[in-house]
Amino acid sequence: MQNVVVKNIERATNAAKFEQYGVATVHEAQGRKGLMAPDMKPIYQGPHIAGTAVTCTVAPCDNWMIHVAIEMCQPGDILVVTPTSYSDAGYFGDLLGTLFKARGVKGLVIDGGCRDVADLEAMGFPVWSKCISAQGTVKETLGSVNIPISCSGQLVNPGDVIVADRDGVVVVAREEVDEVLALSQAREDKEAGVRKRYEKGELGLDMNNMRPALKEKGLVYVDSLADLKK
Amino acid sequence: MQNVVVKNIERATNAAKFEQYGVATVHEAQGRKGLMAPDMKPIYQGPHIAGTAVTCTVAPCDNWMIHVAIEMCQPGDILVVTPTSYSDAGYFGDLLGTLFKARGVKGLVIDGGCRDVADLEAMGFPVWSKCISAQGTVKETLGSVNIPISCSGQLVNPGDVIVADRDGVVVVAREEVDEVLALSQAREDKEAGVRKRYEKGELGLDMNNMRPALKEKGLVYVDSLADLKK
Amino acid sequence: MQNVVVKNIERATNAAKFEQYGVATVHEAQGRKGLMAPDMKPIYQGPHIAGTAVTCTVAPCDNWMIHVAIEMCQPGDILVVTPTSYSDAGYFGDLLGTLFKARGVKGLVIDGGCRDVADLEAMGFPVWSKCISAQGTVKETLGSVNIPISCSGQLVNPGDVIVADRDGVVVVAREEVDEVLALSQAREDKEAGVRKRYEKGELGLDMNNMRPALKEKGLVYVDSLADLKK
Amino acid sequence: MQNVVVKNIERATNAAKFEQYGVATVHEAQGRKGLMAPDMKPIYQGPHIAGTAVTCTVAPCDNWMIHVAIEMCQPGDILVVTPTSYSDAGYFGDLLGTLFKARGVKGLVIDGGCRDVADLEAMGFPVWSKCISAQGTVKETLGSVNIPISCSGQLVNPGDVIVADRDGVVVVAREEVDEVLALSQAREDKEAGVRKRYEKGELGLDMNNMRPALKEKGLVYVDSLADLKK
Amino acid sequence: MQNVVVKNIERATNAAKFEQYGVATVHEAQGRKGLMAPDMKPIYQGPHIAGTAVTCTVAPCDNWMIHVAIEMCQPGDILVVTPTSYSDAGYFGDLLGTLFKARGVKGLVIDGGCRDVADLEAMGFPVWSKCISAQGTVKETLGSVNIPISCSGQLVNPGDVIVADRDGVVVVAREEVDEVLALSQAREDKEAGVRKRYEKGELGLDMNNMRPALKEKGLVYVDSLADLKK
Amino acid sequence: MQNVVVKNIERATNAAKFEQYGVATVHEAQGRKGLMAPDMKPIYQGPHIAGTAVTCTVAPCDNWMIHVAIEMCQPGDILVVTPTSYSDAGYFGDLLGTLFKARGVKGLVIDGGCRDVADLEAMGFPVWSKCISAQGTVKETLGSVNIPISCSGQLVNPGDVIVADRDGVVVVAREEVDEVLALSQAREDKEAGVRKRYEKGELGLDMNNMRPALKEKGLVYVDSLADLKK
Repeated sequence: MQNVVVKNIERATNAAKFEQYGVATVHEAQGRKGLMAPDMKPIYQGPHIAGTAVTCTVAPCDNWMIHVAIEMCQPGDILVVTPTSYSDAGYFGDLLGTLFKARGVKGLVIDGGCRDVADLEAMGFPVWSKCISAQGTVKETLGSVNIPISCSGQLVNPGDVIVADRDGVVVVAREEVDEVLALSQAREDKEAGVRKRYEKGELGLDMNNMRPALKEKGLVYVDSLADLKK
Repeated sequence: MQNVVVKNIERATNAAKFEQYGVATVHEAQGRKGLMAPDMKPIYQGPHIAGTAVTCTVAPCDNWMIHVAIEMCQPGDILVVTPTSYSDAGYFGDLLGTLFKARGVKGLVIDGGCRDVADLEAMGFPVWSKCISAQGTVKETLGSVNIPISCSGQLVNPGDVIVADRDGVVVVAREEVDEVLALSQAREDKEAGVRKRYEKGELGLDMNNMRPALKEKGLVYVDSLADLKK
Repeated sequence: MQNVVVKNIERATNAAKFEQYGVATVHEAQGRKGLMAPDMKPIYQGPHIAGTAVTCTVAPCDNWMIHVAIEMCQPGDILVVTPTSYSDAGYFGDLLGTLFKARGVKGLVIDGGCRDVADLEAMGFPVWSKCISAQGTVKETLGSVNIPISCSGQLVNPGDVIVADRDGVVVVAREEVDEVLALSQAREDKEAGVRKRYEKGELGLDMNNMRPALKEKGLVYVDSLADLKK
Repeated sequence: MQNVVVKNIERATNAAKFEQYGVATVHEAQGRKGLMAPDMKPIYQGPHIAGTAVTCTVAPCDNWMIHVAIEMCQPGDILVVTPTSYSDAGYFGDLLGTLFKARGVKGLVIDGGCRDVADLEAMGFPVWSKCISAQGTVKETLGSVNIPISCSGQLVNPGDVIVADRDGVVVVAREEVDEVLALSQAREDKEAGVRKRYEKGELGLDMNNMRPALKEKGLVYVDSLADLKK
Repeated sequence: MQNVVVKNIERATNAAKFEQYGVATVHEAQGRKGLMAPDMKPIYQGPHIAGTAVTCTVAPCDNWMIHVAIEMCQPGDILVVTPTSYSDAGYFGDLLGTLFKARGVKGLVIDGGCRDVADLEAMGFPVWSKCISAQGTVKETLGSVNIPISCSGQLVNPGDVIVADRDGVVVVAREEVDEVLALSQAREDKEAGVRKRYEKGELGLDMNNMRPALKEKGLVYVDSLADLKK
Repeated sequence: MQNVVVKNIERATNAAKFEQYGVATVHEAQGRKGLMAPDMKPIYQGPHIAGTAVTCTVAPCDNWMIHVAIEMCQPGDILVVTPTSYSDAGYFGDLLGTLFKARGVKGLVIDGGCRDVADLEAMGFPVWSKCISAQGTVKETLGSVNIPISCSGQLVNPGDVIVADRDGVVVVAREEVDEVLALSQAREDKEAGVRKRYEKGELGLDMNNMRPALKEKGLVYVDSLADLKK
């Protein structure tokens, strides 16, 4: 039950390549897993980042461990923070944003609150959080850094890839990065073809030959509402 | 209990004329009915649309029927989708947005989630939804198209008018369109007069002669807080 | 149990000086009190205001007292409205916004809904509210003006200072304004120094000599995840 | 846009027969439609009722129309009430409960709040509501009785059957009552057989021959977690 | 900005007499004010208490001040606790319940979480809270005792009367206790008469002569749904 | 990205011994970690269980994998189920409850909905869930069994101990079971002593010598509210 900081973690290679793909694409490509909850939103619109996860647990209303975690971060990392119990406090603001930016951290994902959002937008340090809150935190209780954590409904292992955009945040397991990259590109390629046909107004019903299956399941076409009651 | 697609619906005439009026104005004009819940929000700010409703039910986490519904849409329509049970899945993304735009559909109103919101904003296809979610859906279960539905707390009949702006979404019954148009304009005219007087700082208390009613209900003016306790 | 309007209130001096300080800074400076809940959000991004509170209670779904309250407002005031029971109605729209702006009121803070948000943004009248809702209100039931109220979790006395920005809304007690102003400036000064050191990448761990305390609480640094299980 | 009271409605026959079947069973039997949202809960545990719907819309925070609606109710009816916009007011209490009970109404389903719940339990008048709230309502604004309404996510037509138990509330369309009754019984019969086999510990995997489908979809059985990473 | 404990407060007399009246009755009697939000619920069903308020603010996730507050409580008091920012921690459990009961405190009202609810029910110490949570709290940060506070949407002054039952919690201002007691009894008396007439099935429409007002507002009675569309 | 079922897991020994300790006690004993969110509630009051976790992921609105998971369960296990994305569907009902009971499973913890709660209570099969919902699920999509999962905010490894009572659900890591058992007992012993002193009305302030620390932090005792303003 000791609180620990793991100094050496194995980071996924090629994490930044995921910036070519949207969160929805990556999520689909890896079989619809790893997506954080929809209340995990960017504090300002625009950023689309991908990097390697450094993980961190904090006590509720306590951001002490974020100061510990930053020392473990390398350029290209994304810090993923989860309180051991929910509070709507603001664990992160513009001062920490300054430090994180100086150290080359790409962004923050936190299952709690963030503050100074106007300043963070001005300096260009992106955060995905559950809420915006000016409520400060204390520095009294330990947590851990670089252990497996649960954040916003997903398991995150240190070194995993985090992809975040306006649609939300998705986690890619370190061992599956290359496979998911390939599948994401394949999905993009396939969607490019679909998009062209959709632009001409071609129906998915025809493109994917859905009509027989709909009929088999019992879908009935009627001319008017009145026919329904007969 | 069959799932049906109604091919011919009677569409309200003059639907687009509602684009002159805000949702709040239309809602007031028709006697404060038809307003969807406040969690029905535009995925990006700016759009103000009005069109005729094509309605669609989907199974939770299943967007198959959206593919069926688009074939029933005409230019100027707005698709209104309601899952039979809540899920925060993302039923609609940029590919379907491309198809809907190509077919002249004005927008989507969905009592569920939407994804690829950056792309949808870039292409200018407006959506009002309950949440933003990258979670994909399956294509396994039937629903119906163009039957009366309940969406975000309101009854929507196919052919009704949908008006949507930054304040939310309101439904105007097809039979009442002309009356509501006239009442909306009348309200605008009246408000224009009020606005001019408000711009000069005239009080509603005086303009609407509210003081006698306030006095009759028992409102008391005192000079200071201390007077309260006497 | 009478409903009253208090005509003469003592207003805090120097209220506008708080516009130099963010909500988070002021909240910290006064010992982390007075912060409204995180669901109190600006209806559009940008405004950062500070002014003296005129307080107002309204019956749920009834905005009559807002018409009474505006007469009690002076230029530089911020109206703070709280329904006696929650409703998501839209108590305030562009017409009232026009009047409030004409009278020099700086903004509105309401523990309920607001509508016509596009118009309010266009005219530059800032509102912090719990939701955006086109639902109208009636004018039937009395409330009070300039009595102590509870709004979004905080006690507000008439004449207190309200500071509001993108992070939320904070209340400063009238008696404590000068002290909090001084403490806010002191905090800014101190943060300026911290910011410079953070910009160079200096760790908070070192700057604030946190390492001994972390060690004393039992934090352990290990080289790898495998060491955890030994 | 007139508010109306429809005096004569066609009521489903055999409504009370649904008291033999749980809400979950009926919902499945009719193809998973008609289920109200999970926040629709009984104010006390125990009741399981089925009856014919009398529908009623009310203005938010206004219960006037409930007084109108009761005159339209017959013994065996269930009143279904929906506010035109959400409020957490308590629209119904022990006095109205006394009246409803005296008139033979079986229960109330309301997409809003209820109060005096201890008294209502003592007298045995069951209510399903969104919340418990002592907040009173006014009698100022009209609504309608016995028109199609949207209640807690479902379309309810007057005369439809309402079934409510501890799991929630389901609506059965009047035209489909006999079919759904038969299907509910069939489901019960089938489930009785399944239950017997489950009581002996027989697996659904075997009973329904699911193993080939699982294998075809790609499910893999491994001996240990370590095998996962190979 | 100092944290203070006020040792001598003026307590309302006759507080316990409110145990004769339900929360809904008292709330109505005092003109529909003072009602806490509907998420303030008893942790177990049964208790109906009334007593004088000792007030207490706590830092989020910190219950230190509850230990300070108990010393200020007298037999017959109810402790009212509000965190300065929301957290779902469990600030109060069976040990503190034991102490409070020993000291004659009637109950606890807390705008946060409570734990050990099975034990608290077994010992008969009633609590109204926002949630049930086993999450512990720290003892690091000061708050105040017996200052005016905002709790669950209502202003509570030390010495006010708190009435709590299954419908929720209502605050009666100390200065208004006798008036509200009299009005509560008057309301009970009046309701007793109404109840008798309702038991016989007499309609409120007739008893209160509502029909003319309904007609004047424009309510129309029609024979059937079909008449609506004509 | 394959979906897997791990057949052999290492189960914690002594899991059932945790039934002597409440969730709050265990959570404290292990340093305030592992507690699921407060919306994880028992579907009926009474049960207090402890057992070894079999873990299971399901697709939203799909309970197929629960049928797979039961085959992996042994008597004394507790199944912990997490959907890969939130839905309020009812994944589990009385039929599955019958099977689970027959196989000796102690209970279910599911970060989703449950149905047939009256039947489940009658048969005595305890469930902790996020909501009660009659909405059925499909059997179309794979998940995994006995992999590490995130459930209601906590990481659960197969073989960990789950303790659940009226206060919620806590996870104890398999490797730490003996240590946490000892610490739970130590905590109980210590609390027994505290309880005795509390029963006599002794203050925590004195028992734990808190007064000097309160004074040092700056807490001030004043005689009356009026002294506050001086």
